[in-house]
Amino acid sequence: MDAGRDERSVTPQSEDFSAWYNELVLRAGLVDRGPAKGTMVIRPYGYRLWELLQAELDRRIKETGHDNAYFPLLIPESYLRREAEHVEGFSPELAVVTHAGGKELEEPLVVRPTSETIIGEMMSRWISSHRDLPLLLNQWANVVRWELRPRMFLRTTEFLWQEGHTAHAGEADAMRETMLALGLYEEVARDIAAMPVVPGEKTAGERFAGAQRTFTIEGMMRDGRALQAGTSHYMGTNFARAFDISYTSAEGRLEPCHTTSWGMSTRMIGGVIMTHGDDKGLVLPPRIAPYQVVIVPVGRGGEEVLAEARELAIRLRAAGVRVHVDDRPHLSPGYKFNDWEMRGVPVRLELGPRDLAARTALMARRLTEHGKEPIPLDTAPGVLPEVLDDFQALLLRRATAFRDDHTRETGDWDSFTEAVATGWALAGHCGDPVCEEDIKARTGATPRCVPLDGPPFSGPCVRCHAPAAYGKRVIFGRAY
Amino acid sequence: MDAGRDERSVTPQSEDFSAWYNELVLRAGLVDRGPAKGTMVIRPYGYRLWELLQAELDRRIKETGHDNAYFPLLIPESYLRREAEHVEGFSPELAVVTHAGGKELEEPLVVRPTSETIIGEMMSRWISSHRDLPLLLNQWANVVRWELRPRMFLRTTEFLWQEGHTAHAGEADAMRETMLALGLYEEVARDIAAMPVVPGEKTAGERFAGAQRTFTIEGMMRDGRALQAGTSHYMGTNFARAFDISYTSAEGRLEPCHTTSWGMSTRMIGGVIMTHGDDKGLVLPPRIAPYQVVIVPVGRGGEEVLAEARELAIRLRAAGVRVHVDDRPHLSPGYKFNDWEMRGVPVRLELGPRDLAARTALMARRLTEHGKEPIPLDTAPGVLPEVLDDFQALLLRRATAFRDDHTRETGDWDSFTEAVATGWALAGHCGDPVCEEDIKARTGATPRCVPLDGPPFSGPCVRCHAPAAYGKRVIFGRAY
Ligand SMILES: [Zn+2]
Ligand SMILES: [Zn+2]
Repeated sequence: MDAGRDERSVTPQSEDFSAWYNELVLRAGLVDRGPAKGTMVIRPYGYRLWELLQAELDRRIKETGHDNAYFPLLIPESYLRREAEHVEGFSPELAVVTHAGGKELEEPLVVRPTSETIIGEMMSRWISSHRDLPLLLNQWANVVRWELRPRMFLRTTEFLWQEGHTAHAGEADAMRETMLALGLYEEVARDIAAMPVVPGEKTAGERFAGAQRTFTIEGMMRDGRALQAGTSHYMGTNFARAFDISYTSAEGRLEPCHTTSWGMSTRMIGGVIMTHGDDKGLVLPPRIAPYQVVIVPVGRGGEEVLAEARELAIRLRAAGVRVHVDDRPHLSPGYKFNDWEMRGVPVRLELGPRDLAARTALMARRLTEHGKEPIPLDTAPGVLPEVLDDFQALLLRRATAFRDDHTRETGDWDSFTEAVATGWALAGHCGDPVCEEDIKARTGATPRCVPLDGPPFSGPCVRCHAPAAYGKRVIFGRAY
Repeated sequence: MDAGRDERSVTPQSEDFSAWYNELVLRAGLVDRGPAKGTMVIRPYGYRLWELLQAELDRRIKETGHDNAYFPLLIPESYLRREAEHVEGFSPELAVVTHAGGKELEEPLVVRPTSETIIGEMMSRWISSHRDLPLLLNQWANVVRWELRPRMFLRTTEFLWQEGHTAHAGEADAMRETMLALGLYEEVARDIAAMPVVPGEKTAGERFAGAQRTFTIEGMMRDGRALQAGTSHYMGTNFARAFDISYTSAEGRLEPCHTTSWGMSTRMIGGVIMTHGDDKGLVLPPRIAPYQVVIVPVGRGGEEVLAEARELAIRLRAAGVRVHVDDRPHLSPGYKFNDWEMRGVPVRLELGPRDLAARTALMARRLTEHGKEPIPLDTAPGVLPEVLDDFQALLLRRATAFRDDHTRETGDWDSFTEAVATGWALAGHCGDPVCEEDIKARTGATPRCVPLDGPPFSGPCVRCHAPAAYGKRVIFGRAY
C-alpha cells in the first residue's frame, strides 16, 4: 500500500488546517487526484479504511432486516422530473450520458446522483399488498454529483456510499425506520470511528430535497467546524405519490406508501481524518485502521530480528490484530517511525537485537501520553488487543472533550459570533429561514441540527429576538 | 426478498432452454429489467448470491497479496485512444458523458467499460523504482458496455465485476500472476459455484483487445453451450508502453513494466443458473445459496409449530447454516414447496404437529435422489452442515459428468459438427483465424480454449487438414 507517495512533510495542522488536510490525504497514500474534475482515486490504504467501516455498517444494516440490492447507474432524465423538488435539488450537479453504442440517445441518461427515483420506480412495481410491506432495501454504490469546489472525501464528483430506501404502510412505521437508520449511523460513528457525533433534526432550510423530515449526525472537526456525517430522511408520501408506490391495505383500500431514505458515504473518512488527526498526521481508530500495529526492525539485527518480527506478526494476526512488518531494507528506522506516525498507525513495535535478547519489543502508541514501554514478546498477543481497545476509547474521550470544550450555550449575539468562530453555538432560533440566511451571511454559520436530546428551551432567537422555535436550542456552526 | 415476483410457472428447461432462463431469472426474484437499454436491477435474492460469491473471491484475492482500491467511473475519452487495439475493442460499446454541471464538457468522459486505461495512468505515477514492484491492485466496480442483444447476467449494459490490474518487473513474474489469477477463478468456480470449468488459453482470434496472451475458464451449460466465466490476461509491455508505466531497475536502467489484468463478473451468476438449474427452476450450490435451508410449517400446528420452527432456525444459524422460516400465513405448504424449489434452496425442512410429536422434521433435498427423510430436531444442527456439503459435492459431480458426457474427441468434420450441436468438441486445429471463422460460419462454434492440461496432439486440423497448432486439441463449442 505504498508506492508513489509524495514524501515531503505535511504542513502542521495548527498552522493551516486546510493545507494540512489537503496535503495529508495525498501524502498518507489515502487518495490521488482523478483526471475528471473533482474525482478521486481511493488508494489501497484509504480504501481499506472504507472497507473496514463498510463492513461494520453493512453488518448492522443486515441485522436490522434490510436486504442489499443493486440498481442501474444510468437513469432516464424523465425520472428525475417526476418529483419537482428533487430535480431542483440535483439538476446543477448532474452528469449526463447523451451518446451510447455509437449513437445519440433518444432520451439522455443521468448518471445517478442518488437512486431515489429508480428505486421508487421499482418499488411501485414490486409493492401491491400490505403483505409486501415494509420493503427494506439498501444499496452500496458509486454516485456522481458534479463538484465545482471539490475536496478529497468531503466533496468529490464521484463518491461511494450506501443508500437505504424503505417503504412502509404508515407514518409511524416509516418514522421508526428513519430513527433506526440514524441510530445505526450514530453507533458506527461513535463505536467504530470514535466520532462523538450529535444526532438531531435539520431545520426546514437544511432539509433534503423532497423530504418531509431530515435527521443528521453532526461531528465536530478539530478546526471547530461541523461535518454532516450521515443523514436519514422521512419522505412522507411525496415520493410514493410521484412514483405511484401504493398498496392495498388489509381492508382493501389503495393507500400511498410512506418512504424513507438514508445514506452514509466516503465522506466519513474525511470525518475520521479531521476528528483525530494532529500535526504529525493521521491518527486512526484501531477498529478501522488498515494496520493496527506496525513492527519496525531496528539496529543491526539483520535476518534474525526480521525472522522474529515476522514470527511475532503471525502470532498477533492469530490474535485478531491487523499487523504489518515494515521490512523495507533501504529506509532507516527513523524514517519509518515518522512515516507510520504520519499514516496514523495506532501502535508501533520496535524490535532490535537488544530487545530480542530481553525477549521484549518496545511499544510506542500514536498519541504518546505513555511514552515508549517494553512489552514481553510472549504475552504480546494477549496484551495488544487490550492496548488497542484502550487507544480506541482514548480517541473517543479526547474527541468528546474537544467537542464539549468547543461548544457554547449562547444567549446573545456577541458570544454567538465568538462561539461559531472556533466551534459550535447552542442557541435559540426563531425558525425563520430568512433569519437563518442572515446569520449565515454574517458569520458563515448555519443551523447544523436540533439535537435529539437537547434540554427544553423557550427564550428568544439569538439573532432577531423573536420567540424561539423547536422547544430547544439549535446547534449552529460553520460546516464542511 | 419476496415482494413483486411474477408468479406464473416457468417454461421447462427441456422444452426451451432460452425461455426457461429468461423467465426463471425474473420469477425467482433474481433480477428485474432496468429502464435504460440492457440494464438490470439485481434484486435481493440475486444480489445475495453475488455477495456470497464475491466474499469468497475477495478473500482469496487479498490472501494472495492484492490490495483493493477504487478508481473513477468517468474516464477522459483521450485515455482510451492511447492504446489503439484497446479503443477498437471497446468503442462501439461506450456510453459517453458530454454534459455535466449544467455545461457541455470540453472533453467527453467515457463511463468505464473497464479500468485498464485509468489504472494504467495511475500506475505510471506510482511506479518509479523496482522497489515499487510488483504492484498488485484489485477493484470491485460497475462497468458499462452498451449491449444490443442483452441477456440478464450474461450480457447487460451495466454489470458488476472485479478487475485485477498488476505491474511487474519482468515477463516471468507477470505470467506467474496471470496464472495465479486464473487459478483463483478456477478454484472459486469449482469449490464454491460447483462449476467444473476448464482452464485454458484463448487462440489469437479470441484474445482480449491489447493482450499478448489471454487465459479463460470455460464452463459447460446444460444446453451444451460454453460460458466464459473469467479471464486473465498477460498484456506484455503493450499497456506499459502506451501509458508510460516504467521503473528503474536495480542496475539503474529504465524498463517498461509487464502488466496483467483479470476479471470475473456477475455473469458467473448466469453460469450457476445454467450449470445446475432444471425444469423445476434454480438449483443453488449451498456455498452461495442465500438460504441453504428453508423451514416450512405444515398442518394445523399454529403458533406451537411456528415457535418450534423459529427455535430450530436459531439453532441452525448458530451452526453456521443460512436458514429461513417461511411463515407467510396466506400461502399453502404446497405453494411454498414449489416456490422454494423454483428458487433453488438446497434443503427444505417440513415441520408439522406430527413431526413435532416425534421430535423430527421431514427433510427434502432439492435434487430428490433420496426422497424425503425424517431427521431428529435435536441433532439437526449437527447433521445439516454435512447434508449441505454432500449436496455441494453432488452438484459438482453431476456437472462434471454432464460436461464429460457432452464433450467428444473428434477427428473428422461430421463428428465435429455433431459434437458442437449438443456440446463440446475436442479437435485439432491449424490455428488460422480464417479457418476459425469458417468453422464458426458453418456450425456456430468457436474455439473456447486450448485446455491447460490437454494431452499432446499432432494430427491435422479438423476442418482444413493443415497440421494442427498448439500441440494439443482445442475445445470448440457454441458460446454465450
Ligand atoms: Zn430569528
Ligand atoms: Zn484449419
